[in-house]
Amino acid sequence: MPLPEKALIAQIRRMATSSTQGRALGSNRTISTAIGDDCAVLRLLPGRESLITTDLTLEGIHFRRDWHPPESVGHRCLARGLSDIAAMGGEPVAAFLSLALPRDLPQAWVGRFARSLISLGERFGVTLAGGDTAESPNGILADIIVVGTAPKGKSVLRSGARPGDRIFVSGELGGSAAAIVQMRTKPQKKVRPRDYPRHFYPEPRVELGRILREKGLASAMIDTSDGLSTDLAHLCEESDVGAEVESVLIPRASVGRPAREVDLDLALHGGEDYELLFTARPGKRIPPHIAGVAVTHIGHITRSRLILVRNLKGVAYQLDPKGWEHFRK
Amino acid sequence: MPLPEKALIAQIRRMATSSTQGRALGSNRTISTAIGDDCAVLRLLPGRESLITTDLTLEGIHFRRDWHPPESVGHRCLARGLSDIAAMGGEPVAAFLSLALPRDLPQAWVGRFARSLISLGERFGVTLAGGDTAESPNGILADIIVVGTAPKGKSVLRSGARPGDRIFVSGELGGSAAAIVQMRTKPQKKVRPRDYPRHFYPEPRVELGRILREKGLASAMIDTSDGLSTDLAHLCEESDVGAEVESVLIPRASVGRPAREVDLDLALHGGEDYELLFTARPGKRIPPHIAGVAVTHIGHITRSRLILVRNLKGVAYQLDPKGWEHFRK
Repeated sequence: MPLPEKALIAQIRRMATSSTQGRALGSNRTISTAIGDDCAVLRLLPGRESLITTDLTLEGIHFRRDWHPPESVGHRCLARGLSDIAAMGGEPVAAFLSLALPRDLPQAWVGRFARSLISLGERFGVTLAGGDTAESPNGILADIIVVGTAPKGKSVLRSGARPGDRIFVSGELGGSAAAIVQMRTKPQKKVRPRDYPRHFYPEPRVELGRILREKGLASAMIDTSDGLSTDLAHLCEESDVGAEVESVLIPRASVGRPAREVDLDLALHGGEDYELLFTARPGKRIPPHIAGVAVTHIGHITRSRLILVRNLKGVAYQLDPKGWEHFRK
Repeated sequence: MPLPEKALIAQIRRMATSSTQGRALGSNRTISTAIGDDCAVLRLLPGRESLITTDLTLEGIHFRRDWHPPESVGHRCLARGLSDIAAMGGEPVAAFLSLALPRDLPQAWVGRFARSLISLGERFGVTLAGGDTAESPNGILADIIVVGTAPKGKSVLRSGARPGDRIFVSGELGGSAAAIVQMRTKPQKKVRPRDYPRHFYPEPRVELGRILREKGLASAMIDTSDGLSTDLAHLCEESDVGAEVESVLIPRASVGRPAREVDLDLALHGGEDYELLFTARPGKRIPPHIAGVAVTHIGHITRSRLILVRNLKGVAYQLDPKGWEHFRK
């Protein structure tokens, strides 16, 4: 794709250059060479470690062109990577975008996608530092790589939870999946992005994650990209522990117009909320709001490897990681 | 894709773990946390910088399942990234693989692909440290991210060429494109990978690149992923110079059986050879072989912004960057 690709690279390069690229990026990070060489060169101050994450965004799997405006696709693409950095308590530094586009995709779509992605990056001081482009034989596909940093040895892992730790989650759950359910079950009804902001424009909890790491509040952390049941299972598996959560404590998202609370099932299993799920040692005081985000105590870590939900009547049942796919398909 | 994805991750994780993962990786690099957390954590010794590159590999664009065995696809996927690290004079450290696979793809294909990729990585001390998987609605797609290191400020850029510098290229050119031409023009004839090794199993010039950087021999460098005419144009553009090459000096690949030399056009424009194209200051002595690879003097850098080829009769004509796509489509 000689011309379209060149034009695309030039377009993205211009947008990236006119934003954060080449700007001084704060005291603990520098991109010295960016788009235009074989590799990007990244220099960190001594005493920092790098965090690296990659996330695919595929048309027909992660978004649909008739459901998602290009701005939402660009935003969600980068937000996924930023959320992974947040879940380590890291500070995002640079992003790389591998993008394959069908030959007949309007340039306007690409422009709106890239502008939204770059503008979300700017808000977090993230440079679009490189990537790759190709022609796609079928559908739009993007892979976002985000590089972040943290002080050496201070990144918050999934594996640090211990029996007795309390479990917390930020924000509200189920809001993103509710949009998918709505679009799938009522295709004739227009779903407005502003009625489902957590789905179309999720805010990665970077500041919250950084504060939890800096203050040593979180013993283990993960983001809720696959849904509470799946992500809590990941955290417990890596920590070799179990968990018990109270259904009544789980913060359920309010969505739609008029606003209504999502079902418990969506809050338990719906993915792509990009909230932070973390544990804290018994002695730590966790404020109810951190960096403007609600933080809710939903349960505690147990020694047995089971993950249980206790309902209003006090009955506990096992929480199977149904995961996000369950709802999306 | 609950089960296939899980199985795939488990499979790749097993293969990665049983190879380099978690092993001490030499004195100047460490991967401390790999697959299984939100991000991979990478720690470099003080005084090193990170090099990061991403490359897409798409079915129907970069390979065809009826042309390329899965081992070749896996090898070429990682070789592209390693070659970018080589072109900076860097040492590769870690790779990340974002992989989307059609639901009906046989697990055996994935196993052969991943084993080949991981085994190439092992040879260069590269850990498969993370990535992402998804179901692909159409065709196999992979994005490889390779992270390397070099001493701070010592990475060899494209922008360092000056008028009077000599131009060198490693190995031979046109061998990879020759395989594509063969498969396209004679689809009934089986093309054997061992007759076209530079196409099916290109060897990234990591050791050569590292030596050129360490000994301060290269003033500018790029790999020939898009073809000599295109990549020389990139190097000249970034260095703000021109070039003149002698057609008779360009090392042409021998391919097929019985072996024959490729046409000049293929050597000038055919891509995916992953050789190193570099410049050296007038005073520097460049040996004819470095790290077991032939290094050929093919021309010199000029002040004018033109890129010229001089033929046997001494006539110079302008070398347009026709690029690789020209041959592939």
